[in-house]
Amino acid sequence: MNLIILTEADRIDADRFRISDHRAEHIRSILKSRVGETVEIGLLNGAIGKASIEDMGEDSIVLLIRETVGLVYPLPQIDLICALPRPQTLKKILLTSAMMGVRRLDLIRARRVERSYYHSPLLEPENYRPYLLEGLAQGKLTRLPEVQVHERFRPFMEDVLVARDDVPDETTLKLLPHPEATLSVGGIVNMAPPPSAIQVAIGPEGGWVDFELELMQQQGFSPVLLSRWVLRVEHAVTAALAQIELLRLS
Amino acid sequence: MNLIILTEADRIDADRFRISDHRAEHIRSILKSRVGETVEIGLLNGAIGKASIEDMGEDSIVLLIRETVGLVYPLPQIDLICALPRPQTLKKILLTSAMMGVRRLDLIRARRVERSYYHSPLLEPENYRPYLLEGLAQGKLTRLPEVQVHERFRPFMEDVLVARDDVPDETTLKLLPHPEATLSVGGIVNMAPPPSAIQVAIGPEGGWVDFELELMQQQGFSPVLLSRWVLRVEHAVTAALAQIELLRLS
Repeated sequence: MNLIILTEADRIDADRFRISDHRAEHIRSILKSRVGETVEIGLLNGAIGKASIEDMGEDSIVLLIRETVGLVYPLPQIDLICALPRPQTLKKILLTSAMMGVRRLDLIRARRVERSYYHSPLLEPENYRPYLLEGLAQGKLTRLPEVQVHERFRPFMEDVLVARDDVPDETTLKLLPHPEATLSVGGIVNMAPPPSAIQVAIGPEGGWVDFELELMQQQGFSPVLLSRWVLRVEHAVTAALAQIELLRLS
Repeated sequence: MNLIILTEADRIDADRFRISDHRAEHIRSILKSRVGETVEIGLLNGAIGKASIEDMGEDSIVLLIRETVGLVYPLPQIDLICALPRPQTLKKILLTSAMMGVRRLDLIRARRVERSYYHSPLLEPENYRPYLLEGLAQGKLTRLPEVQVHERFRPFMEDVLVARDDVPDETTLKLLPHPEATLSVGGIVNMAPPPSAIQVAIGPEGGWVDFELELMQQQGFSPVLLSRWVLRVEHAVTAALAQIELLRLS
């Protein structure tokens, strides 16, 4: 936990927040901080900064915000589209998405997605939100990714994606990692003007079927090779986001 | 499991292997293969290829090698140096290393490594080997990474590393991911001739201390920024290997 993420539910007045869950435990047991000392905080969907520990009771800690700053770098407009994975994998992807600055996570249906995954309690916001918050606290970010769950593949690709005005068709880079692609992410990026947004579509265990690959390519997705070895879904997510970040840093 | 990895212990004659563990279970329950059908195999530290199922008993399966080919691409000479992580994280790093083509994994001591981690049963070869084999089976590789455990930091950096003749000092690229570095992996690579080998040193939770950073830089390691957010150890490993792979593909 590199930031204590504070939400409106924690606020007790303009500059004070009271926390009593694992965040308080982290301050007490891991940071071993005392009253008067400072911790790094992030306001959910807001600034990061420092807060001093004003009070430390048995059950809760009161933090007083001392200073806040905006993020020192622009956040990427990266939308991650994932064939809905098994719950254990989804937990990892939720955390990774928040930690690595993903703006929106679309969980979609694909042929090789098991129907039962749609019945997982993890798809309820109150159940998946802790993984997102844990990712933000790790990555030192505050923007909560927007999670959407879609039950049908074609309507998502043909209607939902097209209707979004924050991903204009002409200036959005659409990446489709695939083990048989020939171009790398770098190869694709070099051929296009700097994109306003990036979409990455990660397939299910076992991969997309041909119909899905064809439809996505019709929708403008470019097959791209992340590596010559075959990655697990959660590693493919991390690898794709890390490679995009490398190109943004370079 | 994208390959059934076969070892000398499984061999019953020149072309036949008998397996009876989770690999047999995978063929039976996941692939749902039958006698006469073909599965993809890899010979540990050898070729990949195809084998037919010659016999399928209650307890074991006999595979007959039909064809083998060498790898179609050269394996990278990447050595991963990791401050010894907690056992749960080490399991992930073992799998990732094998899956992403790491040649050698050095687990080293650092100031912020807990002493107790050195007592983990996971450091015994018979206990960590299954994670490596699982990684190979996922990545479709057969080269088993060489794992070494080192109990002291300075002797490792000053003596062990220097004495290795497969990492010549002048032509080995030595990367030291650090959140305050200014250059990306791409920036470092562009400044140097193509390296004969790459070393990547991943710090402990909480990071390296100043003494360690200074010593590693004296030994030729270049600080490098993987991303602007703060990654967990296991994500840093995947991100670094994915970024190196992107530069090799481009």
